[in-house]
Amino acid sequence: MQKEVTIYDIAEKLGVTASTISRGLNNSPRVTKKTRDKIHAAAVEMGYQHNTIASNLRKQQSKTIGVMVPRLNSFFITSVLTGIERVITKEHYDILIMNSAESGMIEVANAKSLLNKRVDGVITSLALTTKNLHHFTPFFERKIPVVFFDRIIQEINCTKIIIDNFNCGYRATTHLISEGYKRIAHITGDLQRNVYNERFLGYKKALKENEIIFSNKLVKICSADKSEIIQTVELLLKQKPDAFFVTNDFSAAVCIHVLHQKGFKIPEDIAVIGFNNDVLGDLITPKLSTVDYPGELMGEIAAAELIDQMRLKNNKENIVDKTILVPAALIIRESTLKLKL
Amino acid sequence: MQKEVTIYDIAEKLGVTASTISRGLNNSPRVTKKTRDKIHAAAVEMGYQHNTIASNLRKQQSKTIGVMVPRLNSFFITSVLTGIERVITKEHYDILIMNSAESGMIEVANAKSLLNKRVDGVITSLALTTKNLHHFTPFFERKIPVVFFDRIIQEINCTKIIIDNFNCGYRATTHLISEGYKRIAHITGDLQRNVYNERFLGYKKALKENEIIFSNKLVKICSADKSEIIQTVELLLKQKPDAFFVTNDFSAAVCIHVLHQKGFKIPEDIAVIGFNNDVLGDLITPKLSTVDYPGELMGEIAAAELIDQMRLKNNKENIVDKTILVPAALIIRESTLKLKL
Repeated sequence: MQKEVTIYDIAEKLGVTASTISRGLNNSPRVTKKTRDKIHAAAVEMGYQHNTIASNLRKQQSKTIGVMVPRLNSFFITSVLTGIERVITKEHYDILIMNSAESGMIEVANAKSLLNKRVDGVITSLALTTKNLHHFTPFFERKIPVVFFDRIIQEINCTKIIIDNFNCGYRATTHLISEGYKRIAHITGDLQRNVYNERFLGYKKALKENEIIFSNKLVKICSADKSEIIQTVELLLKQKPDAFFVTNDFSAAVCIHVLHQKGFKIPEDIAVIGFNNDVLGDLITPKLSTVDYPGELMGEIAAAELIDQMRLKNNKENIVDKTILVPAALIIRESTLKLKL
Repeated sequence: MQKEVTIYDIAEKLGVTASTISRGLNNSPRVTKKTRDKIHAAAVEMGYQHNTIASNLRKQQSKTIGVMVPRLNSFFITSVLTGIERVITKEHYDILIMNSAESGMIEVANAKSLLNKRVDGVITSLALTTKNLHHFTPFFERKIPVVFFDRIIQEINCTKIIIDNFNCGYRATTHLISEGYKRIAHITGDLQRNVYNERFLGYKKALKENEIIFSNKLVKICSADKSEIIQTVELLLKQKPDAFFVTNDFSAAVCIHVLHQKGFKIPEDIAVIGFNNDVLGDLITPKLSTVDYPGELMGEIAAAELIDQMRLKNNKENIVDKTILVPAALIIRESTLKLKL
């Protein structure tokens, strides 16, 4: 491999310091016209190529933002990325995407990597096993803006883009109760994460308001792995539920699949409501009731916020702590409509 | 923001050149022990932090690979990414993912960005509108290995990971014919891309072998946009097809959806076969026949190849031009099984 020509090489050839070369190439008035001309001539002659990283190192700006997501095989996440890309690309930033694959350890490594690559800002949603936010401290110290979406930790001082998960869980459950279902099973994710915990609390509140006794046996935590979902549904069926509130549409579709195989009619015997409004929801039979989670809109808002804050940073002003609540909507389709049959 | 301490600052303080500071911090024998100690002491005192980018610039290695994908909202692509991550993470490389969103222009910009970020290698699949491979020339010139998967250009000297798309198209169509279908519509992507073109040629060969006259009116090019797919299916229905060969499962699921709405029975009236073996295939009714496209395996192979070549590069050996054919399989489910009803 041919070694790249650096400013050190030009410095050596001309017998001046590297910083003089750097200043000369940037046409600094601190270098005489004569020396500047000599430097430019030598740079051309030696095949020096201006180095963007080195240049951005000096400017402390990379025109790049980092997006750390907990997974990629998710309709919601790819929708958010579409929204981010739409806004960020217009502003001529590059987007580096890093996947933590639901691992807190990988998330820590990815944060370090984005820091080393000198991103100007970060948009992120936490992995399932992320325990704390220490890996974001270096960004805060350097005033590199970080915008959280979806899976957040409320106690942190920065911008958070979320939906009202509590209310969504409450409304989904209330809808099931209003259709006459009483033994409502709940399949969700790790309750340490805000989104799942709040949906669960909303579910509990709806039960309580309707004087339905809450049973821990009807609640199961489950990953997005298909065989694990199948096992979980089979386990819950022993509790004779008449409805399932499942906090993602893919798992809800697998749930319907299992129920069909066992001979249950949906929604006559058992209702199923999902969460996210994935494209698959109205392609399956019966069409899936769900909560519309506006991923693209959240991505657009997150990106617009980040751009604002990167500008503020350039003006040396402070970053504002705020929570932006994006509206979500209950979408009622065939899988829960018992009354209207 | 506090300005970061650079080697220039230490150089100024100690009255030596920046390159001496650099050598001293790297314990080069070209700097005396006494000077080295002075440099280290000053670095600690001034709060100098070792800078990974700058360091990697010197080593010309970033321990980062770039993955440029044509889209992210695709089960196939996220499967490939999962395979790549599994292999690359073990080797302690970071992965930067960039999405070209099917735009050749964005792909060119992304390639430039990865080059500027000094990735050690690239894994990529081409966007729909990519016209040529000029944007990869700088990688080839610098002997940065590039591995292509799925959407490739055959004429390029590097490693390509593909399936036998021609054979898959041929087998899917032959299966439909053997079930008694004769007017087979074909919905596919831009025929300038190898994958779609070869599947189309396989489709044509199967028709010819079975003495079915090919009709251009039964072939439509279509994006992955749902409303566009619906329009395309409606348009093709005017040609009275008795089967659809659709080159991705999501579009095939939308096709089934439209056919159901129009009152067609599947597979009695019309058969539908997809491509990719997405998770949604056996969640819809009827279960979708498809071609299993082993994305995770392709990702693993691409990553293993790239790692081999990055090692070769470090040994200053040459990069090998080769094509790796990954086996794909026909998966026959309910949506095409007319004979066995």
